[in-house]
Amino acid sequence: MSGNTIGKLFTVTSFGESHGPAIGCIVDGCPPGLGLSEADLQGDLDRRRPGTSRHTTQRREPDQVKILSGVFEGVTTGTPIGLLIENADQRSKDYSEIAERFRPGHADYTYFRKYGLRDYRGGGRSSARETAMRVAAGGIAKKYLREHFGVQVRGYLAQLGPIRIDAVDWSVVDTNPFFCPDAAKVPELEAYMDALRKEGDSIGARINVEATGLPAGWGEPVFDRLDADIAHAMMGINAVKAVEVGDGFACVEQKGTQHRDEMTSEGFVSNHAGGVLGGISSGQDIRVSMALKPTSSIRLPGRSLDVHGEPVEVITTGRHDPCVGIRATPIAEAMLAIVLMDHALRHRGQVGGR
Amino acid sequence: MSGNTIGKLFTVTSFGESHGPAIGCIVDGCPPGLGLSEADLQGDLDRRRPGTSRHTTQRREPDQVKILSGVFEGVTTGTPIGLLIENADQRSKDYSEIAERFRPGHADYTYFRKYGLRDYRGGGRSSARETAMRVAAGGIAKKYLREHFGVQVRGYLAQLGPIRIDAVDWSVVDTNPFFCPDAAKVPELEAYMDALRKEGDSIGARINVEATGLPAGWGEPVFDRLDADIAHAMMGINAVKAVEVGDGFACVEQKGTQHRDEMTSEGFVSNHAGGVLGGISSGQDIRVSMALKPTSSIRLPGRSLDVHGEPVEVITTGRHDPCVGIRATPIAEAMLAIVLMDHALRHRGQVGGR
Amino acid sequence: MSGNTIGKLFTVTSFGESHGPAIGCIVDGCPPGLGLSEADLQGDLDRRRPGTSRHTTQRREPDQVKILSGVFEGVTTGTPIGLLIENADQRSKDYSEIAERFRPGHADYTYFRKYGLRDYRGGGRSSARETAMRVAAGGIAKKYLREHFGVQVRGYLAQLGPIRIDAVDWSVVDTNPFFCPDAAKVPELEAYMDALRKEGDSIGARINVEATGLPAGWGEPVFDRLDADIAHAMMGINAVKAVEVGDGFACVEQKGTQHRDEMTSEGFVSNHAGGVLGGISSGQDIRVSMALKPTSSIRLPGRSLDVHGEPVEVITTGRHDPCVGIRATPIAEAMLAIVLMDHALRHRGQVGGR
Amino acid sequence: MSGNTIGKLFTVTSFGESHGPAIGCIVDGCPPGLGLSEADLQGDLDRRRPGTSRHTTQRREPDQVKILSGVFEGVTTGTPIGLLIENADQRSKDYSEIAERFRPGHADYTYFRKYGLRDYRGGGRSSARETAMRVAAGGIAKKYLREHFGVQVRGYLAQLGPIRIDAVDWSVVDTNPFFCPDAAKVPELEAYMDALRKEGDSIGARINVEATGLPAGWGEPVFDRLDADIAHAMMGINAVKAVEVGDGFACVEQKGTQHRDEMTSEGFVSNHAGGVLGGISSGQDIRVSMALKPTSSIRLPGRSLDVHGEPVEVITTGRHDPCVGIRATPIAEAMLAIVLMDHALRHRGQVGGR
Repeated sequence: MSGNTIGKLFTVTSFGESHGPAIGCIVDGCPPGLGLSEADLQGDLDRRRPGTSRHTTQRREPDQVKILSGVFEGVTTGTPIGLLIENADQRSKDYSEIAERFRPGHADYTYFRKYGLRDYRGGGRSSARETAMRVAAGGIAKKYLREHFGVQVRGYLAQLGPIRIDAVDWSVVDTNPFFCPDAAKVPELEAYMDALRKEGDSIGARINVEATGLPAGWGEPVFDRLDADIAHAMMGINAVKAVEVGDGFACVEQKGTQHRDEMTSEGFVSNHAGGVLGGISSGQDIRVSMALKPTSSIRLPGRSLDVHGEPVEVITTGRHDPCVGIRATPIAEAMLAIVLMDHALRHRGQVGGR
Repeated sequence: MSGNTIGKLFTVTSFGESHGPAIGCIVDGCPPGLGLSEADLQGDLDRRRPGTSRHTTQRREPDQVKILSGVFEGVTTGTPIGLLIENADQRSKDYSEIAERFRPGHADYTYFRKYGLRDYRGGGRSSARETAMRVAAGGIAKKYLREHFGVQVRGYLAQLGPIRIDAVDWSVVDTNPFFCPDAAKVPELEAYMDALRKEGDSIGARINVEATGLPAGWGEPVFDRLDADIAHAMMGINAVKAVEVGDGFACVEQKGTQHRDEMTSEGFVSNHAGGVLGGISSGQDIRVSMALKPTSSIRLPGRSLDVHGEPVEVITTGRHDPCVGIRATPIAEAMLAIVLMDHALRHRGQVGGR
Repeated sequence: MSGNTIGKLFTVTSFGESHGPAIGCIVDGCPPGLGLSEADLQGDLDRRRPGTSRHTTQRREPDQVKILSGVFEGVTTGTPIGLLIENADQRSKDYSEIAERFRPGHADYTYFRKYGLRDYRGGGRSSARETAMRVAAGGIAKKYLREHFGVQVRGYLAQLGPIRIDAVDWSVVDTNPFFCPDAAKVPELEAYMDALRKEGDSIGARINVEATGLPAGWGEPVFDRLDADIAHAMMGINAVKAVEVGDGFACVEQKGTQHRDEMTSEGFVSNHAGGVLGGISSGQDIRVSMALKPTSSIRLPGRSLDVHGEPVEVITTGRHDPCVGIRATPIAEAMLAIVLMDHALRHRGQVGGR
Repeated sequence: MSGNTIGKLFTVTSFGESHGPAIGCIVDGCPPGLGLSEADLQGDLDRRRPGTSRHTTQRREPDQVKILSGVFEGVTTGTPIGLLIENADQRSKDYSEIAERFRPGHADYTYFRKYGLRDYRGGGRSSARETAMRVAAGGIAKKYLREHFGVQVRGYLAQLGPIRIDAVDWSVVDTNPFFCPDAAKVPELEAYMDALRKEGDSIGARINVEATGLPAGWGEPVFDRLDADIAHAMMGINAVKAVEVGDGFACVEQKGTQHRDEMTSEGFVSNHAGGVLGGISSGQDIRVSMALKPTSSIRLPGRSLDVHGEPVEVITTGRHDPCVGIRATPIAEAMLAIVLMDHALRHRGQVGGR
């Protein structure tokens, strides 16, 4: 229980359901003196916002964040920062169908089994709607990391179903609805998604995030390793089923001579480790990759059970992302920023360094 | 800091360096009434112990665990359980070499950069030696899970370098030094490791672990999801660089119709999710896979720096595992058991269920 | 940092400043199935609310609480409960005076020294305004404790300055603005407060709270003892400077034969311990007493410094409680309920008992 | 559960029963670079050690502490410090009496009710024996606070039963077995204790501890206030029933003009607050006082129950402190040091200050 807080010194505690009056979070532990306004957070919220292209859910949410505390005269005071987003689009509809039956492969079932009851409107707490607060909170971490530690966090779509994206041009990422870093691939993605939408099916995706400018020394072995906390944060994002740091699974077939990152007076000559050695940042770029499963909310019929244990056929209507991976890039960036911020402060606390 | 505790209700806090007088841990939160003796823990410790075959480090450690508290008349009392293993084999040697230089790709460097000094003897705290305590602590979790929740945790070697092991015969796993579940593959593994040892290089590996018999309902979204905590625990094992739950990265190319696990009155018809939906156990088997990198401690020369920042060539002599993955199976089992035990108690605390 | 969360399984995380747009909190870990509405929380909020008599601050706050999440169809779902209270009365005034100078004996000074800046409007985060959220959160704990564990939490004013209140008639407590349990003492309190107000000074008070109906077994030694967590929660209330459990400081002069609570087949024959032995509830009533200091916000001039370190004379104008102890009873009840709820769940998690 | 860890960044996790093979603890989060040897910790352990005068239990324990990890070449490495003390004097005796019956007023009863079983030898986990580890861990905190923050922690006996000790001469504290700061009172204490011992009864005591040299700014409101965490730590010491900070309960009868600590260019003119304002250190001395109850382990018969609920008369034989307060001074100092160390690091983490 009480699993809705992440971080130890820089903590984010979130609340809110898809169709409640509002969602919100409390960011505790942000150092004083950071210039902060709602506009600083709105940018990433807009990047994540639904309904901005035909490839994502058509639910319309302005996702206007309000800062309710912790900022005075445009600067953080060191006290907890309360953030709130009102749920604008709570389309009133008939839930009798979904109230009684579980979408196959959906958290509907496990929430019901865990708690014995559930808010079935739009997935309730299990809805991706909740991730909007992560993006807002992550925006604070991103800004502090950038301004006080010189650390930049960014990400992109690395694969969508069968389409692999290898060329990475950062200037392209925010110019298309997919966060695709290769302009040449965008038409292919468009076509694929249009076909998928007609089909009524959904598809998985791979997201890569990285952090640059880190000092060496962040991370608290043996359990709270930097990479372990990153894995926790990424696997905690809806639909994520796998996480890699550095070369990840490719390590299985690598030899030591191949994998180890040698050092010369110019520094490291490679980065197979993804910026973490023994759970502590090495000063190289942090490289993380993750897999997102295809959403289970699709309109193609599937076998399932109802709350009485009776077999039923389920068709999910309504507004859903056919590829949840598309909007996941800003969420993954936010979670990485939150973890790095927490470790930056933990390291400073123990070792006293900046 | 204080990153040496894992778990929230069932916690394990560990200490100890490779060449100190002893390593140990405190297991806090174990319910009272569990029959427990040192013999219950020794089995897994022996499975992990070095020097049992020519394919692992020749360091000889009896790894005899002592229970110092928390057990009275053969039964746990609910008070913290202190565990201790004395370091028998602290081969006295000349460390002047390694004291001044960092093995390329090793935590030597990051510990030094983080703390400004380090215990360089045998890797100090970053040594895999520390994982012996995880295995001992995990043994307590395993026993409680088995006896009180009917949950069994087990694992095996799924790949070693280029050698994939697909057939899984559980009865074979403990009959060979590799935890290989396919008897037919063992000779191939033997040959590969012999060649590797001659070569002086090291190799990566993939380990799979699973838990059977779980009820639905364990896991605390949105951050302390069961799979998120599993990812944290697995990525926190030395050399682990990637973690998958269920189909993992294969999800990237899957469609919703393919991935979602449908249900009939007989239950789930597949288990692509790996036993977790929305961060909560579904009652299916938990399926986890992880990648371990090749160790950086090899005797083939590599470019690196010394503590003064001067370029040096490093050769690691001494007794090291050419494939740390070989002995990782009992460690991964232990970490999974610790996470499951913690969540079993957290769920019981909030919902009151067994 | 991140000191704005209390509890381990039943957690309350709060935010908000005296003159910000709103204050709020997140209650995480409340079990599912508790009937809950805003009306259930409003009662205690009204008991604490300012401006209800001439003896408390004349600031007018409706303190209307909103439940933003975690409740569906009138019942808790087990997900985090977001609570919000908008700040209605943010009297616009000139703060130039107080912005530059520290009230003697006030947190103005320490917040400034800690953070290097502060929200000086109405005391910012250090304002007692924040305690409204504790009362709202405590209301949830109180209701669960009452309905699921049969535990009742209540309190009263035990002393105000020189006026000791010894007779305890629970039916009287809520019939006067002082939470005084002795009707005969009320006129004396009225007179004392009227004189004090004219004088422009403030006064201390003693509050007693108790819990009845507890089972034996709650509390987690050796550090998270029930009484230790109660002391933490009570000393964490604004202006509290001392906490006693059971006979408290009277124990100093007691002999063992006098203090020990003997047991017969009818149960305990006395309750000097205050319901806790060795940090674990004994099944007797929990008895707690605390001292609240006189507020430092008074209109009688005092010597202090300004932000530049220059000596100044400070007079606090505006609306302040001449005795913060008067409104502290519902706050102390709430904090006791939060601690008990947390320990009820922790105990259930480990031992499985109800 | 898992209530055997205290602190957030500087954490102490303890284990061990009175009559087990050993007691121990893990100190995690100690910064690197602190010169540390067993001799640094032995001094306070000897001050606390039993059997050093006829006024304390005659149990003989050398209390020789071993450092098992976290120190290399005489300096802390930043990794967890494992501490161990073997139990030398486990006098083999017949426990059949005590095994079946609860000492009135003793944790015997609540441990049994909580866990359903208990280690009854010498009180098991509830024995004051456990506090030896707190003293050892506190010694590390004391040394770091002194050397890196210029903070000194010390304490003394302020009252024993009816005997109040008002004159405080620090040079006298360690020259008598009572930690009495007034040489003139020692004979009176001797006589009182001799009479008490003959009588077979026990008596309560008051201990005062203080910290000097603190900077302003330590403490994390609103819940983890410095004084709240101090109250938690002190109330967590065996037999402590009350805690005061600064003027404590005297505040009840004070007026604001009397209590508030005014400031001039020379600094504060008084210290009624005890060094904490709004939960944050003010830079003044921290002043804490606590009450310890008389031990329930006395040889005068008392009514109680046995494990079957049958009424019995209990007489406690064996070696017990007739006044547990006598040896409590080093324990209270240790706990205060642990709390201050934790907050020093938390503050540094968030605000970056020294």
